[in-house]
Amino acid sequence: MGTAGEHEPLQRAALTEALASGSDEALERLLSGAHPADLAEALDHLDDPGARLRLFTMLDATVASRVLRDASESARTFLLGALPDARLTAVLELLDTDDAADLVGGLSEERRGRLLQRTDAETRREVAELLTYAADTAGGIMKAEVPAVPLRTTARDVVEYLRRNAEKLHDVWDVFVVDGSHRVVGRVPLRRLVLAEDDQRVEEVMDPDVVAVRTDTDQEEVAHLFEKYDLATAPVTDSDGRLVGCITVDDVVDVIEEEATEDMLALAGVSGPAGETDGALRGVWSRLPWLALNLLTAAASAATVMLFEGTIQVVAIAAALMTIVASQGGNAGVQTMTLVVRGLALGELEPGQLWRVVRRELTIAAANGFVLGLICALVVFAWRHDAKLSGVIAAALLANYLVAALLGSLVPIALKLLRVDPAVSSSVFVTAGTDVAGFFIFLGLLTWVL
Amino acid sequence: MGTAGEHEPLQRAALTEALASGSDEALERLLSGAHPADLAEALDHLDDPGARLRLFTMLDATVASRVLRDASESARTFLLGALPDARLTAVLELLDTDDAADLVGGLSEERRGRLLQRTDAETRREVAELLTYAADTAGGIMKAEVPAVPLRTTARDVVEYLRRNAEKLHDVWDVFVVDGSHRVVGRVPLRRLVLAEDDQRVEEVMDPDVVAVRTDTDQEEVAHLFEKYDLATAPVTDSDGRLVGCITVDDVVDVIEEEATEDMLALAGVSGPAGETDGALRGVWSRLPWLALNLLTAAASAATVMLFEGTIQVVAIAAALMTIVASQGGNAGVQTMTLVVRGLALGELEPGQLWRVVRRELTIAAANGFVLGLICALVVFAWRHDAKLSGVIAAALLANYLVAALLGSLVPIALKLLRVDPAVSSSVFVTAGTDVAGFFIFLGLLTWVL
Repeated sequence: MGTAGEHEPLQRAALTEALASGSDEALERLLSGAHPADLAEALDHLDDPGARLRLFTMLDATVASRVLRDASESARTFLLGALPDARLTAVLELLDTDDAADLVGGLSEERRGRLLQRTDAETRREVAELLTYAADTAGGIMKAEVPAVPLRTTARDVVEYLRRNAEKLHDVWDVFVVDGSHRVVGRVPLRRLVLAEDDQRVEEVMDPDVVAVRTDTDQEEVAHLFEKYDLATAPVTDSDGRLVGCITVDDVVDVIEEEATEDMLALAGVSGPAGETDGALRGVWSRLPWLALNLLTAAASAATVMLFEGTIQVVAIAAALMTIVASQGGNAGVQTMTLVVRGLALGELEPGQLWRVVRRELTIAAANGFVLGLICALVVFAWRHDAKLSGVIAAALLANYLVAALLGSLVPIALKLLRVDPAVSSSVFVTAGTDVAGFFIFLGLLTWVL
Repeated sequence: MGTAGEHEPLQRAALTEALASGSDEALERLLSGAHPADLAEALDHLDDPGARLRLFTMLDATVASRVLRDASESARTFLLGALPDARLTAVLELLDTDDAADLVGGLSEERRGRLLQRTDAETRREVAELLTYAADTAGGIMKAEVPAVPLRTTARDVVEYLRRNAEKLHDVWDVFVVDGSHRVVGRVPLRRLVLAEDDQRVEEVMDPDVVAVRTDTDQEEVAHLFEKYDLATAPVTDSDGRLVGCITVDDVVDVIEEEATEDMLALAGVSGPAGETDGALRGVWSRLPWLALNLLTAAASAATVMLFEGTIQVVAIAAALMTIVASQGGNAGVQTMTLVVRGLALGELEPGQLWRVVRRELTIAAANGFVLGLICALVVFAWRHDAKLSGVIAAALLANYLVAALLGSLVPIALKLLRVDPAVSSSVFVTAGTDVAGFFIFLGLLTWVL
């Protein structure tokens, strides 16, 4: 955490104590100067609704608005339900428009309308506008407050503009330069503004090469652009190229974490935004569908095994060894699939590189299959002195690694080409494929050589 | 990508053509004004070493230094090998110290020493200093160029300071305020500097609540702090609290992507930084150890099956049905484990919340087990008219979901408490556990009721 002498994180234990003791002074002393992010965290850790509400109502309006923005979903839902409309309206007007839109976006249409009705006309118009964009697009994460000045503005006038709009533009790193039709033609990082002469016009100091996004650009693509070009702010334009908002890097950091979490959970068969803090019911709903689907594919694998019922009755050890072949194939498939899914998500891998990837994965599979197949065959031979069985398990392992390499690379790339998110659906196909193939190849070869 | 009229991405096809045609003019026209990040990407896609080198040597020194910084590891390794020392020295002096340290960090000690010997004294000292920190700590990602001014500096003098150091401090968002012992006592975001009166002292406009990190703070913790407090820059202090460097948010974006990728690959059993673009040999090494370990645990599962060889000879269908129980347990275990591992990595979950998590996961497992166990029992009964077999598979499924919930939550939290990265080692334990438990419970129950 912060080094001593600098940022002091809020002492949660002291806070709990102060809330329990009931003394307002002790509480006020703790809260004064506490960072909203620390307060939000403390609020998340309070289980007692009364204590939560008491803490929140003691905060001044500006701090309260940021605490509500930073709070976890469950704490936020609780507060939105418990707070009167008047208090929420004040919070909405103090938040940036993107955060205000996030906040009311989760409310019932009726309450949202009522709250927005009470806010000032500008907030109402801007928030309503932001709510029209899909949540996972640039429009859905941008704020309407964007610092923009005409081409011929002088540095002195830009400073004056920032001063006049200080309350709205409190988090500015770049000022955008627009032409007569409100199209972005340049960007002035604040450092250049600081170094400019008072009379210099922005067109002389601006960087004319601006990376902009459109309201319908996917948020994952927005994150790529920030990462690639090391952006602090990106202007957002409508379909006619007019500047309508901007995205700042702190929001992009959240997008990157969110997208990585979603992909990771999707690969594990957990759908939707069901975090560790949500209720058990939501946990069931986020996992049951995938388990049910896996039950279907597992039944297909079991049916494959049943094709060889006769062989298993004769060689019961086959029932044990076949699980090794399937398990190894599944693992190898998940390795390849995860590399490919992540490569596609980060833009490091393109579907056009398919054959290069497949060739590489098959090579790796052949090498691993040779080494591990040999080891496995030697162990089985030492144990059972059965050359046929040893040969079959080695051959089946190698073959299933190759199947795993093919499925692990082809499935996510094919899904990507079909515009399905590879993270969400690859696992089912890959592990079902390696299970069926593992059982079929091993038991089939064994039946054949017997 | 960029909207028309703004940032124009480099046309890769045109570039390849210009390189093939051999005309320098066409090439120069394409390269002039191209963004270094686009050039780096183009360089990565060139397979011909001659073309790569020709492209790179045509760039001016400043652009070349950024291209080398942004290039993929393989392109970078190639260029570092192909470029003469004099050219690399020039590049090093133009880069920020963190990027220069990254670049020489990958070289042999002998070449690194030779290159640093040629750079100016300041670069040499600073880069050598940065190389002493572990790569995954704040010291390993910070740059030595940090804008810092004493408490009593006026706004006008800060501007003068930034102007004097414009070449070194080209990427500044915050100016730090230090006391006589070079300890951080405040932060002046550039926006406040812009709005300050010329004669105002920084102590009047600074934010005294600065979130700082120490050189040995883990980079994952650094990323948490940036995310939590929406930072643009964090000052880095040594063990005595003196300011020695700073970290900017664009570097943190890379850390977040890198940590998420590492965790995702580790969960899938791919170790080390083996990306899709690396050679096949490295691919084998990054996966073979985990497959070998899985072979061992799969052998343990197979041995469990062999305990019930007699049962399988009598009821061969058991060999098919047992795979369903193991597969479902593995999937449910991976779901829980991934949620817990990600929650721990994001700091949303703390080991102290262990029992809350276990309770929740057991509840979900019981619900899923009841639904899916019932379905499975009905299907098996409809198919085989065997009440015992149906009852056994339902009970075994439910029990294995509960085992999966326990292992999926206990294993990562236990590893975290033992200071082992849960992402790297959880999968082995969880899936081995659900396999062994699945086979043992199903075959054991079946043997018992027969």
